[in-house]
Amino acid sequence: MRPSGREPGALRAVSLTPGAARHAEGSCLIRMGVTEVLCTASVEGKVPPFLRGQGQGWVTAEYGMLPRATHTRGDREAARGKQSGRTQEIQRLIGRSLRAVTDMKAMGEMSVTIDCDVLTADGGTRCASITGAWVALHLAFEHCRRMNILTRNPLRDQVAAVSCGVFQGTPVLDLDYAEDSKADADANFVLTGAGGIVEVQGTAEGAPFTDAELLALLGLARSGTAELFARQREAVGL
Amino acid sequence: MRPSGREPGALRAVSLTPGAARHAEGSCLIRMGVTEVLCTASVEGKVPPFLRGQGQGWVTAEYGMLPRATHTRGDREAARGKQSGRTQEIQRLIGRSLRAVTDMKAMGEMSVTIDCDVLTADGGTRCASITGAWVALHLAFEHCRRMNILTRNPLRDQVAAVSCGVFQGTPVLDLDYAEDSKADADANFVLTGAGGIVEVQGTAEGAPFTDAELLALLGLARSGTAELFARQREAVGL
Amino acid sequence: MRPSGREPGALRAVSLTPGAARHAEGSCLIRMGVTEVLCTASVEGKVPPFLRGQGQGWVTAEYGMLPRATHTRGDREAARGKQSGRTQEIQRLIGRSLRAVTDMKAMGEMSVTIDCDVLTADGGTRCASITGAWVALHLAFEHCRRMNILTRNPLRDQVAAVSCGVFQGTPVLDLDYAEDSKADADANFVLTGAGGIVEVQGTAEGAPFTDAELLALLGLARSGTAELFARQREAVGL
Amino acid sequence: MRPSGREPGALRAVSLTPGAARHAEGSCLIRMGVTEVLCTASVEGKVPPFLRGQGQGWVTAEYGMLPRATHTRGDREAARGKQSGRTQEIQRLIGRSLRAVTDMKAMGEMSVTIDCDVLTADGGTRCASITGAWVALHLAFEHCRRMNILTRNPLRDQVAAVSCGVFQGTPVLDLDYAEDSKADADANFVLTGAGGIVEVQGTAEGAPFTDAELLALLGLARSGTAELFARQREAVGL
Amino acid sequence: MRPSGREPGALRAVSLTPGAARHAEGSCLIRMGVTEVLCTASVEGKVPPFLRGQGQGWVTAEYGMLPRATHTRGDREAARGKQSGRTQEIQRLIGRSLRAVTDMKAMGEMSVTIDCDVLTADGGTRCASITGAWVALHLAFEHCRRMNILTRNPLRDQVAAVSCGVFQGTPVLDLDYAEDSKADADANFVLTGAGGIVEVQGTAEGAPFTDAELLALLGLARSGTAELFARQREAVGL
Amino acid sequence: MRPSGREPGALRAVSLTPGAARHAEGSCLIRMGVTEVLCTASVEGKVPPFLRGQGQGWVTAEYGMLPRATHTRGDREAARGKQSGRTQEIQRLIGRSLRAVTDMKAMGEMSVTIDCDVLTADGGTRCASITGAWVALHLAFEHCRRMNILTRNPLRDQVAAVSCGVFQGTPVLDLDYAEDSKADADANFVLTGAGGIVEVQGTAEGAPFTDAELLALLGLARSGTAELFARQREAVGL
Repeated sequence: MRPSGREPGALRAVSLTPGAARHAEGSCLIRMGVTEVLCTASVEGKVPPFLRGQGQGWVTAEYGMLPRATHTRGDREAARGKQSGRTQEIQRLIGRSLRAVTDMKAMGEMSVTIDCDVLTADGGTRCASITGAWVALHLAFEHCRRMNILTRNPLRDQVAAVSCGVFQGTPVLDLDYAEDSKADADANFVLTGAGGIVEVQGTAEGAPFTDAELLALLGLARSGTAELFARQREAVGL
Repeated sequence: MRPSGREPGALRAVSLTPGAARHAEGSCLIRMGVTEVLCTASVEGKVPPFLRGQGQGWVTAEYGMLPRATHTRGDREAARGKQSGRTQEIQRLIGRSLRAVTDMKAMGEMSVTIDCDVLTADGGTRCASITGAWVALHLAFEHCRRMNILTRNPLRDQVAAVSCGVFQGTPVLDLDYAEDSKADADANFVLTGAGGIVEVQGTAEGAPFTDAELLALLGLARSGTAELFARQREAVGL
Repeated sequence: MRPSGREPGALRAVSLTPGAARHAEGSCLIRMGVTEVLCTASVEGKVPPFLRGQGQGWVTAEYGMLPRATHTRGDREAARGKQSGRTQEIQRLIGRSLRAVTDMKAMGEMSVTIDCDVLTADGGTRCASITGAWVALHLAFEHCRRMNILTRNPLRDQVAAVSCGVFQGTPVLDLDYAEDSKADADANFVLTGAGGIVEVQGTAEGAPFTDAELLALLGLARSGTAELFARQREAVGL
Repeated sequence: MRPSGREPGALRAVSLTPGAARHAEGSCLIRMGVTEVLCTASVEGKVPPFLRGQGQGWVTAEYGMLPRATHTRGDREAARGKQSGRTQEIQRLIGRSLRAVTDMKAMGEMSVTIDCDVLTADGGTRCASITGAWVALHLAFEHCRRMNILTRNPLRDQVAAVSCGVFQGTPVLDLDYAEDSKADADANFVLTGAGGIVEVQGTAEGAPFTDAELLALLGLARSGTAELFARQREAVGL
Repeated sequence: MRPSGREPGALRAVSLTPGAARHAEGSCLIRMGVTEVLCTASVEGKVPPFLRGQGQGWVTAEYGMLPRATHTRGDREAARGKQSGRTQEIQRLIGRSLRAVTDMKAMGEMSVTIDCDVLTADGGTRCASITGAWVALHLAFEHCRRMNILTRNPLRDQVAAVSCGVFQGTPVLDLDYAEDSKADADANFVLTGAGGIVEVQGTAEGAPFTDAELLALLGLARSGTAELFARQREAVGL
Repeated sequence: MRPSGREPGALRAVSLTPGAARHAEGSCLIRMGVTEVLCTASVEGKVPPFLRGQGQGWVTAEYGMLPRATHTRGDREAARGKQSGRTQEIQRLIGRSLRAVTDMKAMGEMSVTIDCDVLTADGGTRCASITGAWVALHLAFEHCRRMNILTRNPLRDQVAAVSCGVFQGTPVLDLDYAEDSKADADANFVLTGAGGIVEVQGTAEGAPFTDAELLALLGLARSGTAELFARQREAVGL
């Protein structure tokens, strides 16, 4: 029995609110159960130095968590003077995931910076960030189309992510914090609308896991992201 | 004429939403027009080293702004590796303002950390932070009373803040960003429910201002904070 | 009775020594009682990036304190690897105060950096820094005139600062450390020769203060700065 | 055809030299083709603060690369003043992988720090680090047994890692730099001697990959680690 | 001919002003020609962690330069966030030099921190710092004797330093900036009152130097420090 | 009697292995007894900003030590976020030593960065670094000649270094760790093939040393470096 009472294959209640940040070119507030992440996409008309003059664009991401997003207050990274290894790992993952479905040649020499800031944390913040970030990025590209900066949206496909895990011997979908902290294994899957795998990050917290378990988790992730893709399309009006 | 069409003595639309952060002992989402700040109060059962063994408590504050709270994206302070002078100045001000109305002896050896995170910025974020922080702090103290950690609420009075300025020759209340960036002078007033001045910070951006202007701004601040005090009482159920 | 035996409206002994730093384009050693600050003005023929090509100049300030300027040794900020919030707050104040009386258009594209280094601290170091910095800046501009870099001195007016406070119920002028550490309230006033207010920063350390107290402190500040303006004129030969 | 001429399922030439670092309690120099990593294990008789008094041990890892381990010189992280996100990601992975096969209760309150320093880089440094680190850790634990600090070796199983990828449409084992920089997808597998999966990290660099490709890469990793496990046993004399 | 017109074996005008810093337990303002360094000694009743419980004391030093001590303004190290390699090298040298003549057992468990802050720089600041620091340290120890913290002064001997160099082929004593920047070789000598060598740091800026030149520079240093030792004794009243 | 049983004038076993780093333009692994330092030379076709447009080159050095190069593990400087004062002092010394024998005009506008990384430490690492670095630099320049980037090797002479000390009253050559930690005095000498002194850094750890001792140590250094120069010539094929 899951702490939340959910079925093994059930996502938490999901909502994607487009336009949640007033000033950003694209934005989305994603809620997965209690977890709440504000994703914004900021457009800038230049690329980082290593890409200059190559006629292509760039998409990158930054991740943060409000100090009291969690049950007990965490350090403010700005006050401590550096981002943790976990923060850097997550923001690199978000950036790679979005670039995997973006036609950077079609962007021209512009950059989009995605900011994913966790307002409330209850597990699955990195996956929620990716799912919400895609909506923010899509909206920012549409904004550029309306401004005649782009002639078409450079996103080639959707991308969404969900974490699965083996909890008390059973593979379950969309771990919340209560499950995540006790799971034997957990794996984050970043999948495309067309069904491809962009990233898989599986970690055995307790006993190592088997090939069969890995496949079971992947199966759950496919069904979970199917629902997330539908919600993304609603949010952007596709 | 003010860009917003407001009367010189009119506040922006104000809302104070108590309990906006699920995990914090006390919290408040304050909106003043478009400006939106999430204030949380986190209780910890110990005091900083310089106060240990003195039988008193401590209240401190940290301030941050989401990178895309503003019209154009700002650097993430955690990524840059340090807090700006402006950030430090503001968080020191918030802390002093709250300590001015707190009976720290009545707290015993416990600390409260207030986090003020700006979700959307449109001028007046430091003042909104103080006004919202008082609500978060009050609620956190009430939480401690319910938990029998405190026998009475150590807040001696209310505290709220508002910025006023001389805009196109006229003293006006509660500057928004459009006014703030063009004002000749602006002053932040931190006042108590009983009418005392806790902090006044006036700065001439253009021409220096006169004693009469300073008094006019103070008068506007008194009327503005009167309304804010009423909203705070509603928010905490007094 | 003030610890120093001074009358409520009396400044400490003041001296302003122009040219105290051999290499700087302008400099001044200011002593207010025991407090001693070396102010230097360094001229550079370029402006910061955000001002390039706008045909105007810039004046900025940095502030520091020798580790043993104080009764007990403080950390060396260079060794600790960062400037404190207090240091940043002060250097921002000094810079704003000087820019308020400088015609930056008249400077052309050049910068002046003011360094205020406290050799001995006994209260009032930020105010002494501003008063001394004006002399250093004036002398540096005169140096530029003699070098034919400037045709006239871009300073439009004098600026000086003094701290006042409510000490044992009485408003007093020019707090020294013994008073400052026990005052109920203190306020720093930055005023111009023409009588305008450039900055006012009032803080209630104990009980909040009243409008009447604020005005009494402002009155003391006016009489104190009148004397400081006279000393500045002597120091620069006006 | 692979740039190295290897068969799809062939590892590079592997060597594991135990005792390569004179002062460390355990050490191993691992070479996989040109890639060369020095792994040392340093024993300390205490645990980090968060584990004190719990009667268990801790294993952690740090990773670095000599500036000229690579074709073109990279920045020295110590000179730049911080470790890159990549470095932090890798050292967290190494630590988790080793803890997954260590009985930390059996260690008592002691810590082992594994240092993996890349002397020459040609792809696969994080996997080589894990494989070599296991040998260093085993030897350090044996050293503790000889010193009567431990009564048995707390390692429950072997752990080794290898990267696989889809190169020009074909799944291949043990990517070198020439392949890694052009692969469509690559995945690092950390596997145990008993066949369990400890970590899987797959990333699509170009097109997303399929379930079948993931399984093919996992199959290659199993055969590759089988050889690595044999080499580890030789190196430690099992 | 030396730029200053001095004889090869002549020191610059030297003055040592004891008690120049009001708050420090011991202090000395040293001037060597234009070079001016304020040396303070701060006593604290504890030792660094690595010496605790060993019944001995510690002497350490920090060095800094005001940004406009030099002809053109240098960066403020506190603002840049780190001390330069040069600064660290110098403060390590000052600390070693003083410890070489201090009986640290006779101090008991107390520390003295020497701060050497350069107010005006014209070459030879590290040597002047050592010479002045000895006076500050001596006075601080005498202060401790008067306070009955020490029964005797733990200084076993005097220590002073001077830089010599080969300028236009001639060995000369006490290089100033004009000479230092053009010397073929320069060497700093730290010598004791009894004639021993505590430190010698010789560097060929241009052509390497010979044994004979090294000995000639050492001879000059001996005659120069003889004068400095006399001045130190005057300054401390020996 | 020396702990190693060596004669007072005997070097440790020395070996210089050219080409030890696969990717570098020049490299050398130097072993002096147990001490082992990998020196690499990296060529870049530009100079630092302060030299641009002056038609000359630059040689600089960085130094590091693997955390477990020593008997007990030291902090990783990259993890701590800064290089120690000792590290900075050493890398500045290496750079100066190499520049003293390089004709930087003959290099044209190119830079060489020398990395000296200590794999095993047993005393004398800074001296070994200089001796090995010269070989790496020579080989890198020869590489540039073969590539037709340089027409002749810009090295004007050899440079090598050795530490000597007074151990139990006797001057001895090439201190190892056991001696270094107990020596009364030690001095590092950097000498040229032609017999000139490039650097001398002598420090009295215990009692100050005499002129005679300094000369005795210099004599030992001359005989030691004679052997090192021969080994360098062998290593580069001169």
